[in-house]
Amino acid sequence: MKRSIPVRAVPADPNELAADDVAHDECGVLGISTPHGEGVAQLSFFGLFALQHRGQEAAGIAVSDGKRARVHKEPGLVSTVFTPEALAPLTGYHAIGHTRYSTTGSNAERNIQPFLVETMHGPLSVAHNGNLVNATTLRDELLHKGFGLTATSDTEVFTLMLAAAGGQTWQERIERTLPAWKGAFSLVILAADQVMAVRDPWGFRPLSVGRLPNGGHAVASETCALTTLGCVDIDEVRPGEMVTLRGAEIERTQVLAPQANGARCTFEFVYFSRPDSVWADKSVHHVRQQLGVELARESMVDADVVIPVPDSSIPAAIGFSTESGLPFNDGLIKNRYIGRTFIEPTQDIRERGVALKFNALTENLEGKRVIMIDDSLVRGTTAGPLVKLLRDAGAAEVHMRITCPPITHACHFGVDMGHDDDLMAARLSVAEMEAHIGADSLAFLSLDGMMRAVAGREAGADDGHCNACFTGDYPISVGDAQAKLAFEGVLN
Amino acid sequence: MKRSIPVRAVPADPNELAADDVAHDECGVLGISTPHGEGVAQLSFFGLFALQHRGQEAAGIAVSDGKRARVHKEPGLVSTVFTPEALAPLTGYHAIGHTRYSTTGSNAERNIQPFLVETMHGPLSVAHNGNLVNATTLRDELLHKGFGLTATSDTEVFTLMLAAAGGQTWQERIERTLPAWKGAFSLVILAADQVMAVRDPWGFRPLSVGRLPNGGHAVASETCALTTLGCVDIDEVRPGEMVTLRGAEIERTQVLAPQANGARCTFEFVYFSRPDSVWADKSVHHVRQQLGVELARESMVDADVVIPVPDSSIPAAIGFSTESGLPFNDGLIKNRYIGRTFIEPTQDIRERGVALKFNALTENLEGKRVIMIDDSLVRGTTAGPLVKLLRDAGAAEVHMRITCPPITHACHFGVDMGHDDDLMAARLSVAEMEAHIGADSLAFLSLDGMMRAVAGREAGADDGHCNACFTGDYPISVGDAQAKLAFEGVLN
Amino acid sequence: MKRSIPVRAVPADPNELAADDVAHDECGVLGISTPHGEGVAQLSFFGLFALQHRGQEAAGIAVSDGKRARVHKEPGLVSTVFTPEALAPLTGYHAIGHTRYSTTGSNAERNIQPFLVETMHGPLSVAHNGNLVNATTLRDELLHKGFGLTATSDTEVFTLMLAAAGGQTWQERIERTLPAWKGAFSLVILAADQVMAVRDPWGFRPLSVGRLPNGGHAVASETCALTTLGCVDIDEVRPGEMVTLRGAEIERTQVLAPQANGARCTFEFVYFSRPDSVWADKSVHHVRQQLGVELARESMVDADVVIPVPDSSIPAAIGFSTESGLPFNDGLIKNRYIGRTFIEPTQDIRERGVALKFNALTENLEGKRVIMIDDSLVRGTTAGPLVKLLRDAGAAEVHMRITCPPITHACHFGVDMGHDDDLMAARLSVAEMEAHIGADSLAFLSLDGMMRAVAGREAGADDGHCNACFTGDYPISVGDAQAKLAFEGVLN
Amino acid sequence: MKRSIPVRAVPADPNELAADDVAHDECGVLGISTPHGEGVAQLSFFGLFALQHRGQEAAGIAVSDGKRARVHKEPGLVSTVFTPEALAPLTGYHAIGHTRYSTTGSNAERNIQPFLVETMHGPLSVAHNGNLVNATTLRDELLHKGFGLTATSDTEVFTLMLAAAGGQTWQERIERTLPAWKGAFSLVILAADQVMAVRDPWGFRPLSVGRLPNGGHAVASETCALTTLGCVDIDEVRPGEMVTLRGAEIERTQVLAPQANGARCTFEFVYFSRPDSVWADKSVHHVRQQLGVELARESMVDADVVIPVPDSSIPAAIGFSTESGLPFNDGLIKNRYIGRTFIEPTQDIRERGVALKFNALTENLEGKRVIMIDDSLVRGTTAGPLVKLLRDAGAAEVHMRITCPPITHACHFGVDMGHDDDLMAARLSVAEMEAHIGADSLAFLSLDGMMRAVAGREAGADDGHCNACFTGDYPISVGDAQAKLAFEGVLN
Repeated sequence: MKRSIPVRAVPADPNELAADDVAHDECGVLGISTPHGEGVAQLSFFGLFALQHRGQEAAGIAVSDGKRARVHKEPGLVSTVFTPEALAPLTGYHAIGHTRYSTTGSNAERNIQPFLVETMHGPLSVAHNGNLVNATTLRDELLHKGFGLTATSDTEVFTLMLAAAGGQTWQERIERTLPAWKGAFSLVILAADQVMAVRDPWGFRPLSVGRLPNGGHAVASETCALTTLGCVDIDEVRPGEMVTLRGAEIERTQVLAPQANGARCTFEFVYFSRPDSVWADKSVHHVRQQLGVELARESMVDADVVIPVPDSSIPAAIGFSTESGLPFNDGLIKNRYIGRTFIEPTQDIRERGVALKFNALTENLEGKRVIMIDDSLVRGTTAGPLVKLLRDAGAAEVHMRITCPPITHACHFGVDMGHDDDLMAARLSVAEMEAHIGADSLAFLSLDGMMRAVAGREAGADDGHCNACFTGDYPISVGDAQAKLAFEGVLN
Repeated sequence: MKRSIPVRAVPADPNELAADDVAHDECGVLGISTPHGEGVAQLSFFGLFALQHRGQEAAGIAVSDGKRARVHKEPGLVSTVFTPEALAPLTGYHAIGHTRYSTTGSNAERNIQPFLVETMHGPLSVAHNGNLVNATTLRDELLHKGFGLTATSDTEVFTLMLAAAGGQTWQERIERTLPAWKGAFSLVILAADQVMAVRDPWGFRPLSVGRLPNGGHAVASETCALTTLGCVDIDEVRPGEMVTLRGAEIERTQVLAPQANGARCTFEFVYFSRPDSVWADKSVHHVRQQLGVELARESMVDADVVIPVPDSSIPAAIGFSTESGLPFNDGLIKNRYIGRTFIEPTQDIRERGVALKFNALTENLEGKRVIMIDDSLVRGTTAGPLVKLLRDAGAAEVHMRITCPPITHACHFGVDMGHDDDLMAARLSVAEMEAHIGADSLAFLSLDGMMRAVAGREAGADDGHCNACFTGDYPISVGDAQAKLAFEGVLN
Repeated sequence: MKRSIPVRAVPADPNELAADDVAHDECGVLGISTPHGEGVAQLSFFGLFALQHRGQEAAGIAVSDGKRARVHKEPGLVSTVFTPEALAPLTGYHAIGHTRYSTTGSNAERNIQPFLVETMHGPLSVAHNGNLVNATTLRDELLHKGFGLTATSDTEVFTLMLAAAGGQTWQERIERTLPAWKGAFSLVILAADQVMAVRDPWGFRPLSVGRLPNGGHAVASETCALTTLGCVDIDEVRPGEMVTLRGAEIERTQVLAPQANGARCTFEFVYFSRPDSVWADKSVHHVRQQLGVELARESMVDADVVIPVPDSSIPAAIGFSTESGLPFNDGLIKNRYIGRTFIEPTQDIRERGVALKFNALTENLEGKRVIMIDDSLVRGTTAGPLVKLLRDAGAAEVHMRITCPPITHACHFGVDMGHDDDLMAARLSVAEMEAHIGADSLAFLSLDGMMRAVAGREAGADDGHCNACFTGDYPISVGDAQAKLAFEGVLN
Repeated sequence: MKRSIPVRAVPADPNELAADDVAHDECGVLGISTPHGEGVAQLSFFGLFALQHRGQEAAGIAVSDGKRARVHKEPGLVSTVFTPEALAPLTGYHAIGHTRYSTTGSNAERNIQPFLVETMHGPLSVAHNGNLVNATTLRDELLHKGFGLTATSDTEVFTLMLAAAGGQTWQERIERTLPAWKGAFSLVILAADQVMAVRDPWGFRPLSVGRLPNGGHAVASETCALTTLGCVDIDEVRPGEMVTLRGAEIERTQVLAPQANGARCTFEFVYFSRPDSVWADKSVHHVRQQLGVELARESMVDADVVIPVPDSSIPAAIGFSTESGLPFNDGLIKNRYIGRTFIEPTQDIRERGVALKFNALTENLEGKRVIMIDDSLVRGTTAGPLVKLLRDAGAAEVHMRITCPPITHACHFGVDMGHDDDLMAARLSVAEMEAHIGADSLAFLSLDGMMRAVAGREAGADDGHCNACFTGDYPISVGDAQAKLAFEGVLN
């Protein structure tokens, strides 16, 4: 589920804003089917645990024993939602799971996934990563058919359309319904006796499949979940493909032709995915190191040390260091326990900005010319305080280097970057941003440089990726997306 | 919501069974609409508080501000579900509320009412007391139209049928849909700008309406809720009638003709309703005293004292005493804090049966011939231990008198009495029951005697009441009801 | 534990005040010792369950297995504090338990009983009902010996004095310490291998002992707990007596001579104790009926019906009816689910006063001259609204009769009636009170009348009861009690 | 609080054991005193937040307003224990705080710190990091003076000894009591109008003091908490020193002469402390890099890449890389959300050992000779699975290098490493360990090498550090420590 244009129901914690300038990926999905039924819920748990970085607000698992389906889902981290008591009743052969990012709201609970309904064809449960750009239209169609909708999520749209699609099999229903869905979706679908996974023909969001060591198969948003489960023969689910897992069996069907070269989200490589995931045959960690290499080639500056903003920028900083020959070192230490806190900082603390999240290592910075590598600037709220933190620790110069181009457009395909207006680079030039954050220099990786690292070629129509947040060239028209907010407020 | 043939998901506490031989009424409903919008949620809270006896498992309130609706509902007593924090966001002009009795089950939460959906006509929320006997058929019809159902309650059936009913107004949709619903239902319905209440044409379950002291109106399952709110001009919602509350306005429409003389649930008078409620122009308390009077006329026996099984039988015991001339006194003291406990009693305690709930007053019983009045025998598990308790306290004779006839048939119209097989009187004759419980004598009030107290006339086709649990003459065929279980297990 | 001069940490709920004009007894205690160790925690649970009326704020059980002691205690009702998981580890042969009434406060938790410490003589746990009037002095003595005190309760004083008392046995320590304690205390004490119970020489608060049906003995604040456990040979623990329970054995020692005729709390008979308890060889229920009889003799008035304020006044109303010949009937119905609610009533509701707690039965009141029996007037906040409720229901006359004399002095021996200033009768004459509550007449039972019902004789120095709240004649000087507040605020 | 010889009350999660081979430091302490009283609780919160790594099981803050003290403490992370509601009442000028590591146990709650008592000198609250080796003796002394002890922690011993110490000021009491305490203790002490901090004369555990930017001072276990609060003039509290913070004032008194060269815990540098802390004028991060440098000098091996076990070994791996000239890179990715989970892994998962915590980066490992740097081997349970993980990812060789010597002796000064028997190096030689974990080679840093990095000189009597876990040379006799377990079981 993705709310492309989120509305904050509660005022954000000022400290949180200051310390958290990242885009949020929304949701990880997982599906498992085994012939033996041993520990299906446990496997789902451990798989979701590896997808926790894709959503920390809620988690859910639905399991079918061949006849009946049950779901357990609630707000919280995977490890807190799934106690032994919660997992115990989830017995069966087939399962889907979900980790969710969402904005705060009193009715958020009804949007927690997987969504489970009874249909004339038996139980049906769906979980989703992505965002439908024509959700408003599809919702209206459902409403005008007389449906009552209980949630505000795309997932209910998928579910009810599938339930009403006619046809003899769930595969047939998916084939009938798929053409109507415009946008990004990596879906997992649970029926009484099988799990299905579908990926939009653009391939915006990742989805992979693998063979479980003890029989059966698993699909997951990222391969890190599959390797955690010990999967072998891991392969990407192709754009437009439907995969059916039924005990020991697996069927793969190309339902819709992939859209041209596809539109994989580049930002998954830059920031979202776990570095130990592999997507499009590329190691995310390796791509990030290459982003650092390309960045060094493009925007080298004479300096004494290269430091990452931990943790996500470490590989790129290593790559920059390797390519530039400048020494890599830690310059910032991150509090490992950072998370949501609702305590308002005192004025002392507030003025120190990112102090709660980072401390500077004076001995590695004092008197030095520092190149600080960060993965991206979204709202741009932490860059300034970080630069100041380095200077306070004695850095002689601070050169900020970003491993992607300026983000100038909101995402409508599953990433919460805020409105266009929230984006620093949509309002300011690079020179203005440099002045704003107080760095000696600021440089972004070029689109071509990024694509060389990500795809091994220059950017262009044939690069197979969605770079809309950098370019504004949305692979699908998003005019409809603006209307999506309209219905999101009706029920809450 | 009523599950006519409940399946216990967990083994019942043996002690609980022993100490709790009562039928459970399922649900109280409430609706409020005011022109000023002051304290609508608070009023709903206090109204539900007065309906707590109709369901202690969950509670919910949905409120509309004229445009958007919100709901808060969760398991627990009204006073614990509705904290100030929970009530604060429920601002608006129109509200419905619900108290729920339900069996234990892991997925019970999704059946908690009110049920709230978005429809093409705006938000729609429904809460329900009663039981549809053709719910299986109606569910199947919805499923075959392609609907996906998220719950197992009748309420979702009502809601989705209304959402899909076409028509220009909610009133029109109710008029179109009402004829399809067979069974007991006292419904409250919230739309964006109004509250509607509907009662089935048989009038199984109570429903009344009154005028709020500061403007607007309220409907509620029982008049005790209306008097708690200070209502005046209290009147019964007629069988087959629809009442619309819209700010200061009220409209009353007879949608369906009442079924002959109606089929009010006699058991509401005997046990369920609060004694301070008035139904069909009769005070429940007064009816209960009259039940005692009739009982004395029918089955007097020479004795020294008349004692009630507290609290429900106190009025009848007073009536019996008055009519018989025998002195009324307390003989049993009830622990006011009795409720669900999950602690397994020791063997000592278990053997003492009802000891946790009742203690006997030796000084009022010792050496005396005692007439003990109870409202009803359902499973018959407590009568024997109570008789023993009196004998242990020194009673010379124990004569048990019951203020209604033997219950021989399960209810399919909103009361959980268990299966037919669970009913003591379905398996045993009065003589056998007398022997089983160890009383010196056991007598039930006759059907005619009961109806004289309740309706002022003998039992018969024209008595206007449903006595199916005593006679097996169900006002509506319940053949369909047996199938209802089928779908109740599919999703859990 | 008793805070004789309570300070409200939070503003009281206005509705709660209006609906709750009662004195609060503070705490019930229980002790059990068995030779077999079967279900000791379960027995304690069921015993405390029967003492729930003596305190609903917190509960605790401490158990010793002969060597080690464990305690589980937390805020809440007995049934919610003691889940099966909480009881499971409480294995052993000896146990004490406690139910607690307390005022709200953020640090109330540390005052929850039983109090458990390690001493040089092994574990020691204590629970207490009553109030020490010289607690300030004793605390100061402990502090000046260098003790650090973790709580503000009398219980810690008892515990630490016992721990430091020297001597060879716990019995010896109790004997050495007992003379220093001035005030009301019914104590249960757990050591590694035994349970001891001690009652102050005045006998202010009740305490009884009985033999368990399967071996061993139990002590409890009230006999209703003992009968719930199936005890036989039930006897009062005498003022100044120490009882030791050690497996199958019981020892009873008169440690201190009883104070003259004793000073049993009359108010236990009037209001606090459960009616099925027996104290001083008198059934509480019977005494209450006699209070009604005496009241009828003293202050009869021509009327049509006698009604109780439920539930506590029912026996007295029956007694009044029997003696007067006037018919007894219900006139008020009480919401069985009343309890703490934190929802602020709307103006509508507030004006209706006691509406949330009581509804009037119009058909029993309309046009009638009513005698309403209540047990006592403390703050006097509900009497007026009740009179108005009856009048609104059509009562022609309302005569209020109270089963005890005007309460004019605060209690310093374990009952929370508020400060002297809070007491209605300390500020107003009977005539003024009559006018204030709007009754046609108001009459209190005389001190002599009350004592005839309670003790079978006129009031006087030899009546063996504490009537200080009616007379101001405190059996022990309470000058010290005013200082007690001083330390109660230091740690919170 | 330190339990030197912990007994696991519950069977450890096998997966947790496998994935968590670390020593646990027990507790972080904090003290703050300001002249203005602004946000003292908030400052304490943010300071504790920076000490979260020293204890994740419970947290507490005690605050005094000059007269009264209050405490809030409960199990959980700092961010969950301290909601705005919990912090709000903690107003005042002086505060102490604590983060706690503890073993699981039903009565753990009463050991949560700070400990708060009332004394004859007013409120007294204490929090503690370390372990008393003569606690048993001191407890016995207290018990024989007649004290009753409520907890099993050293903290209660400190508190009660201080309360009973006589003297005119808290400073005087500390001076009188300090000589009796043998072992490791960094204490913070709150009285009505001041905060005191004391460090044992050996200086086992860290403790530093700094000046707050807006007035007043703070003490904390680590400087990272002080820099988070914006402190300047940060200085170590000297061994045997007492620091008094009183509003704007600070007094520093050398109460006891430091023990020879002191006995700073080397393991704080190797593993416990946050890398951004400074202790003994040395940056922890810098020391760790130097550990890597020394390790490269001692045990270089020909290889293709140097990888850290994240996160703690990253600085050492960088140091090793720099010194050796071998490239540094990531080889393992750690799940950032790892923590306690109670879900039993399936056999599939269990066999994969550390899979839930780490994934290997195949592209950085395949065909390569790998040097893997880890900080220490304690129980040695993860080293083998990690080696296997690298081999499964294609590593040609795996050489494990540890940044400290083999740990052969349990700590009795505040670190939970388990019993001697739990320590891998206490049972096996280096060659046996190498074979056991399946590495191509295994080497530990020498004691001298470690001390060169930590203290700039060889190990020896004058190195000023405690290396007992590596050498068995305990700076204080720990014979008494074995007896400590005796009392730990008495009360639970």
